[in-house]
Amino acid sequence: MKVTVVGAGAVGASCAEYIAMKDFASEVVILDIKEGFAEGKAMDLMQTASLNGFDTTIVGTTGDYSKTVGSDVAVITSGIPRKPGMTREELIGINAGIVKMVSENLIAQSPEIIIIVVSNPMDTMTYLTHKSTGLPKNRIIGMGGALDSARFKYRLAEALEAPISDVDGMVIGGHSDKGMVPLTRMATRNSVRVSEFLSEEHLGQVAADTKVGGATLTGLLGTSAWYAPGAAVSELVKAIALDSKKIFPCSALLEGEYGLNDLCIGVPVVLGKNGIEKIVEIELDGAEKAKLIESAEGVKKTNSLLN
Amino acid sequence: MKVTVVGAGAVGASCAEYIAMKDFASEVVILDIKEGFAEGKAMDLMQTASLNGFDTTIVGTTGDYSKTVGSDVAVITSGIPRKPGMTREELIGINAGIVKMVSENLIAQSPEIIIIVVSNPMDTMTYLTHKSTGLPKNRIIGMGGALDSARFKYRLAEALEAPISDVDGMVIGGHSDKGMVPLTRMATRNSVRVSEFLSEEHLGQVAADTKVGGATLTGLLGTSAWYAPGAAVSELVKAIALDSKKIFPCSALLEGEYGLNDLCIGVPVVLGKNGIEKIVEIELDGAEKAKLIESAEGVKKTNSLLN
Amino acid sequence: MKVTVVGAGAVGASCAEYIAMKDFASEVVILDIKEGFAEGKAMDLMQTASLNGFDTTIVGTTGDYSKTVGSDVAVITSGIPRKPGMTREELIGINAGIVKMVSENLIAQSPEIIIIVVSNPMDTMTYLTHKSTGLPKNRIIGMGGALDSARFKYRLAEALEAPISDVDGMVIGGHSDKGMVPLTRMATRNSVRVSEFLSEEHLGQVAADTKVGGATLTGLLGTSAWYAPGAAVSELVKAIALDSKKIFPCSALLEGEYGLNDLCIGVPVVLGKNGIEKIVEIELDGAEKAKLIESAEGVKKTNSLLN
Amino acid sequence: MKVTVVGAGAVGASCAEYIAMKDFASEVVILDIKEGFAEGKAMDLMQTASLNGFDTTIVGTTGDYSKTVGSDVAVITSGIPRKPGMTREELIGINAGIVKMVSENLIAQSPEIIIIVVSNPMDTMTYLTHKSTGLPKNRIIGMGGALDSARFKYRLAEALEAPISDVDGMVIGGHSDKGMVPLTRMATRNSVRVSEFLSEEHLGQVAADTKVGGATLTGLLGTSAWYAPGAAVSELVKAIALDSKKIFPCSALLEGEYGLNDLCIGVPVVLGKNGIEKIVEIELDGAEKAKLIESAEGVKKTNSLLN
Repeated sequence: MKVTVVGAGAVGASCAEYIAMKDFASEVVILDIKEGFAEGKAMDLMQTASLNGFDTTIVGTTGDYSKTVGSDVAVITSGIPRKPGMTREELIGINAGIVKMVSENLIAQSPEIIIIVVSNPMDTMTYLTHKSTGLPKNRIIGMGGALDSARFKYRLAEALEAPISDVDGMVIGGHSDKGMVPLTRMATRNSVRVSEFLSEEHLGQVAADTKVGGATLTGLLGTSAWYAPGAAVSELVKAIALDSKKIFPCSALLEGEYGLNDLCIGVPVVLGKNGIEKIVEIELDGAEKAKLIESAEGVKKTNSLLN
Repeated sequence: MKVTVVGAGAVGASCAEYIAMKDFASEVVILDIKEGFAEGKAMDLMQTASLNGFDTTIVGTTGDYSKTVGSDVAVITSGIPRKPGMTREELIGINAGIVKMVSENLIAQSPEIIIIVVSNPMDTMTYLTHKSTGLPKNRIIGMGGALDSARFKYRLAEALEAPISDVDGMVIGGHSDKGMVPLTRMATRNSVRVSEFLSEEHLGQVAADTKVGGATLTGLLGTSAWYAPGAAVSELVKAIALDSKKIFPCSALLEGEYGLNDLCIGVPVVLGKNGIEKIVEIELDGAEKAKLIESAEGVKKTNSLLN
Repeated sequence: MKVTVVGAGAVGASCAEYIAMKDFASEVVILDIKEGFAEGKAMDLMQTASLNGFDTTIVGTTGDYSKTVGSDVAVITSGIPRKPGMTREELIGINAGIVKMVSENLIAQSPEIIIIVVSNPMDTMTYLTHKSTGLPKNRIIGMGGALDSARFKYRLAEALEAPISDVDGMVIGGHSDKGMVPLTRMATRNSVRVSEFLSEEHLGQVAADTKVGGATLTGLLGTSAWYAPGAAVSELVKAIALDSKKIFPCSALLEGEYGLNDLCIGVPVVLGKNGIEKIVEIELDGAEKAKLIESAEGVKKTNSLLN
Repeated sequence: MKVTVVGAGAVGASCAEYIAMKDFASEVVILDIKEGFAEGKAMDLMQTASLNGFDTTIVGTTGDYSKTVGSDVAVITSGIPRKPGMTREELIGINAGIVKMVSENLIAQSPEIIIIVVSNPMDTMTYLTHKSTGLPKNRIIGMGGALDSARFKYRLAEALEAPISDVDGMVIGGHSDKGMVPLTRMATRNSVRVSEFLSEEHLGQVAADTKVGGATLTGLLGTSAWYAPGAAVSELVKAIALDSKKIFPCSALLEGEYGLNDLCIGVPVVLGKNGIEKIVEIELDGAEKAKLIESAEGVKKTNSLLN
């Protein structure tokens, strides 16, 4: 298993770090356009190998895609943040250009590659990757729900005063403050629904806190978060590497599932060696359905800013 | 096992991250003076718990030492970098003040604490901690050699075209470009001395590259590195937690060992539940001894800048 | 953290193995009365340390309880299997004598010890340990539900064609074919109730297969199983070591909880540094309650064979 | 990565267990001829998945080689132990027949397979596999030195009163009490030669104890050991899976290396995705060379019992 991570920023480096630490891949290539930056991250990470005990090789490169040849999976984290005076449309235009170019370069080196899109706005960038590359839909996965669900579990555990490993739950919908649909009704502690432990009001607060999870961290850190995004990606890659058929909420191209069409949005998918091997349609109640539809409308609106 | 990490910068956060991921501690407290910063790092890290599979709890606090009460081990990463126009003496004075205050605050909450010093200039800050706290010498450990040795192994592996896990070697002496003494003569690949595989010239290059390991990364990253420093700390803490009696090159107060006195400098030590349980005096050849003595002189010179 | 495992049979050795591999304890002592047997298991396991990467020390002893001094947790796996011509009463009498003697010996060396009982009939042996030692009830834990739940998840995963890590569920009640109460109604796949994926009939089969889980393995292996029992114990010990507050179904002394009194039976408990820190009363429906009461009657009947 | 383990005895099951726990393979198939035996081991092991945290699928089969189709690596542990009245020649004849048949069956399902031979007498069975299958020599690996080296490190650590993770050393030569050549001269503790810590006499004792490592365990356990053999195999498989280029002493077909020809015997080899990617010729002193040659003679003598 060879993995390429495009973008050596904090998120990209965390992806590489956790993929390496899970010790299932032979090689992780980090590629960035900033001179020496990916090499530096790779070097610092490789110097943890004797201390953290992994055998994966991490390699950095400044823009040399030939180093990525034969990759099984690639993670695209590239993109710029919104700058003062920039319209949302301009931002999307720029990031769309980057993601399109990166995915073309990746595919040129590794025609069978599976692509995980992390760049924001994530659902739209995933959709764009489908449109621009024409890859089979199972081979393009948007990372968002896995992260949002991890943040949901964090908030649930906090409310329950329980360890996170005892909590389960999913967030579907668009990967944005407004778009997320935390499925509080289903969430569990050791298989017991959390509604047995938490009031509806408390659960509402958990959902609200989850939805602003990214913004809360940006407020505290002064920049967007990276550990959990990287960890979420590493789990997706591992599910592909081990062909584990695990379910993660991921942004997938919908063609009728959940009554939705022609967009990428977070729904539960089965991941295996072929990428998205199945979209799992779980039963939603009326309110959940309504929220998902509303979320889809938001994603489509953003998609419409692509030209 | 409760661990406190003072300083939520990149190095401090990496310490907390790897200690948590190794899953032997019940709690890690990150403390920083920047409002919300430690809380943000702790939150992002805790959101990896369900993805990276650990049960350690990570807590952040803005300066509230009462949260550190009952810590078994503390890691001090605080300090400022040198600013333009600042003399080396001024820098040391400021960092000495910080380290002194931090260690006092830690001891007030946890009188039996073992302190690992990471702040730079590390050997001098370790020495200062001995002088200012009066703690038994086994309970103050300077982190430097463990990191330098990891970087040495990285460079050896690179030269040998071997995986890092097959390489062993130690760096003793002061934790600085000039102070480091990479023990190339002893270094091995699967117990075979590397001199069987590499020319003396090549080994000299490995040693030279090791000594500028930190600077090389600063050049590439635009800031000093953090992954390997954090990983090195996590290994020291784990050796104490598991009472493993592993040997690491650490900055220890010498009282005659290696013919040196009244300074802290990197030598092989046995780590266990009591901190430094033994200083191991290995046989050095003439050149190695000379380098260690020269290194000690450099450390003493820096120590003399303490007032 | 020091752990003692009494009994170097397959289950005891697996307990030691997994506790060591999880690398949170400093020492595991295996004690057996068969000359050299515990020493042999300890030696073989220690020879995996460089291959499996752990630092826990495993020590074997033939009956020397002084080696267990200062243990934080002990696991009692001792006992004989039923022999031809032996009545159930005779068997219980013999095992009760063994467990009583072992627990006394352990407490003499480690007055603050937490005891995990694995010996069969487990619920009754746990109850006996309460009665005979007079230890606070939080410090005696019967291992059964954690294993039964692992087997339940295995059968659920099989039925769902899903990976086990995606499945959650609990088995409460007595640790016997008839006593187990698999909570199929609550069981989930990624927080989605499995009843969405499996028919009632299929779920009934899963429950039935779970209840004969031990017997099925005995049929295949020609002896009772050991890997999963050992793994279940290692998780309980880890929850105590890391003070993680995780919930496991364990055999606990009930004093009114679930309307039951004066017996040990499997219910969800919170494990932390004090052992059983809380018994969690979850809402059962009528059928589940009835099954639990019937299961309790069975356990009490077995308890009555103690004299 | 798909791995097949032939033989569900204690060693085979331990191979499967540790390969699964290291969580790099998608599937491990255990095959045995004893009805239900492999299925039982696989089931017990799979029931640890939720407790030990791995995603590898373990499948058992009674003799159905079609389940092994597409395996990347196979481990052959099959064979019978010597029975009373059986000559050494008869034993070898029977085991040779088994190993030959097993390897043919494996290759029929997976023509590109890499085979690791564990069956005893191991060096001879490895040689036989070369002769009978005609596979390229890189794809047949005898497991022996990796285990013997682990036992050597155990004895070194014991003598040094050091943790095993700090010790390095290799055993080359034949995988038998008389054939093993522990390289005490090179062995290290944290890269420092152990001769600095241990007297020549003490080191001689370590070597002697290492050579009877298997027999010592058989004496204590009443049967031959299995944990460390399984762990050693798991490391070899992992080195292939991750293409890590790690060095292990393994039984390899020699064609002039070390002045030896036409036999399989333990020498340091580089393992990667192609199996044995290189035989590493390290410098031996006169005594070591003499021992290796003597060991080779012993192996050839056993080989001569093959007809």
